[in-house]
Amino acid sequence: MTSQVYREKHRVLYYETDLKGRLKISNLFDLLMVVADNQSTQLGLSLEDLAQRNRGWVVMQHHLDVKRIPKNGELLTLTTQADHYNRFVGYRDFYIYDEQAVEIAHLQTVLVMIDQTTRKLISIEASEIEPFGATYVKKRRRLPTPLKQTTYQSDKTYRVRYLDIDINQHVNNVRYLDWIFDSLSYDFLNEHEIVSLNIQYKKEINYGKIVHSEMTYQPELLTSYHQITQDNETSCLAEIKWVPIKK
Amino acid sequence: MTSQVYREKHRVLYYETDLKGRLKISNLFDLLMVVADNQSTQLGLSLEDLAQRNRGWVVMQHHLDVKRIPKNGELLTLTTQADHYNRFVGYRDFYIYDEQAVEIAHLQTVLVMIDQTTRKLISIEASEIEPFGATYVKKRRRLPTPLKQTTYQSDKTYRVRYLDIDINQHVNNVRYLDWIFDSLSYDFLNEHEIVSLNIQYKKEINYGKIVHSEMTYQPELLTSYHQITQDNETSCLAEIKWVPIKK
Repeated sequence: MTSQVYREKHRVLYYETDLKGRLKISNLFDLLMVVADNQSTQLGLSLEDLAQRNRGWVVMQHHLDVKRIPKNGELLTLTTQADHYNRFVGYRDFYIYDEQAVEIAHLQTVLVMIDQTTRKLISIEASEIEPFGATYVKKRRRLPTPLKQTTYQSDKTYRVRYLDIDINQHVNNVRYLDWIFDSLSYDFLNEHEIVSLNIQYKKEINYGKIVHSEMTYQPELLTSYHQITQDNETSCLAEIKWVPIKK
Repeated sequence: MTSQVYREKHRVLYYETDLKGRLKISNLFDLLMVVADNQSTQLGLSLEDLAQRNRGWVVMQHHLDVKRIPKNGELLTLTTQADHYNRFVGYRDFYIYDEQAVEIAHLQTVLVMIDQTTRKLISIEASEIEPFGATYVKKRRRLPTPLKQTTYQSDKTYRVRYLDIDINQHVNNVRYLDWIFDSLSYDFLNEHEIVSLNIQYKKEINYGKIVHSEMTYQPELLTSYHQITQDNETSCLAEIKWVPIKK
């Protein structure tokens, strides 16, 4: 079976960019998640249909590679395809191309299916994933795990807001990125761009909770290591590789 | 002269909505600001051109009336027109229509021109506003002022994040709404919808500052009163009228 590639165009809007006119990484993720939802809906497998059967896809891990950050006004082509799955895990790939059809970013996503009531992992039904052209595999593709530090250099706290919560009744995956980026300084964010981002979700977070965004930066590796905790439990680990912006 | 009406269509996306599938008010503002920018660019008066001449439009006040909140997936028509101006103040109107061409929201915006270096008010040049078909008026149209309370019932603090800052190097107007809505409880936000929002900006806020979001709710008026302060100075006042959602 060949996985079906779904594609959409999107012009980067002013409000999706930062003070330097660069597409914000959280907005890039928002856009890609919409593309995935639109493919699902087109195939008659919308999130609403799944939710009515008390089921839902939950992201376990995102691994993003970035060749360059798109700018305000650029016309992008966003593609997605569901490639492989096994009993418990589905793999989805996304690519972003610029107007010259040059690949500028690649996202690999690992998803699981949960029971909406018990919040427990359940097995994926073939009928939920085969319409995408996904192939059943025995051996799962493994993405590298973000490195956990024993201690972190900095720690900022946040209270979960109403608007951080999504239709799954927990903090939306993309909102973690706001806490992660805010752990880095103004000057650092101004002078660096992302090369890769690896984020692994371990435990969901609900409204009103206090979360900690911890960070350690290793300059010799140009890498920042992040942990989001809630009640002293790790909710999320992330590792970001950076490159200084050429002046 | 007749003011030129500019229009665009937009389909409400999943990530622009809250946990109930309602378009978030901050996203509604983001969309309308893009429409205004696009009209300016079409007329050869882009924000970038202005910035190169060290000038910039700054929002002083937004007054939004809402007939109903659009839902995920709805196809909206967004229109804007620059109607009137005097030496120091420009007026812009926005309307949102649904697929049946029924008006569902109306936003009135008051703008001033600033010198980007001194951050001081400067007079609007006719060449900057007459291409929009705006008419010069002697007497300015006045919008009601949000009521300031002597004391507020609640007070939450926020640290300004890198991603709150826009290309004007200060907190983007729309980001204040995140602090304003977060002052209301989960249950209140779940069970109410906006009828009108009146927000007046008094002093800009920069990166790293600690801001307070104060709020008083008057149930008999179904109205919340908001103040954003920084260093004990009022940066912003707002007044929101609500309606309980019919069950």
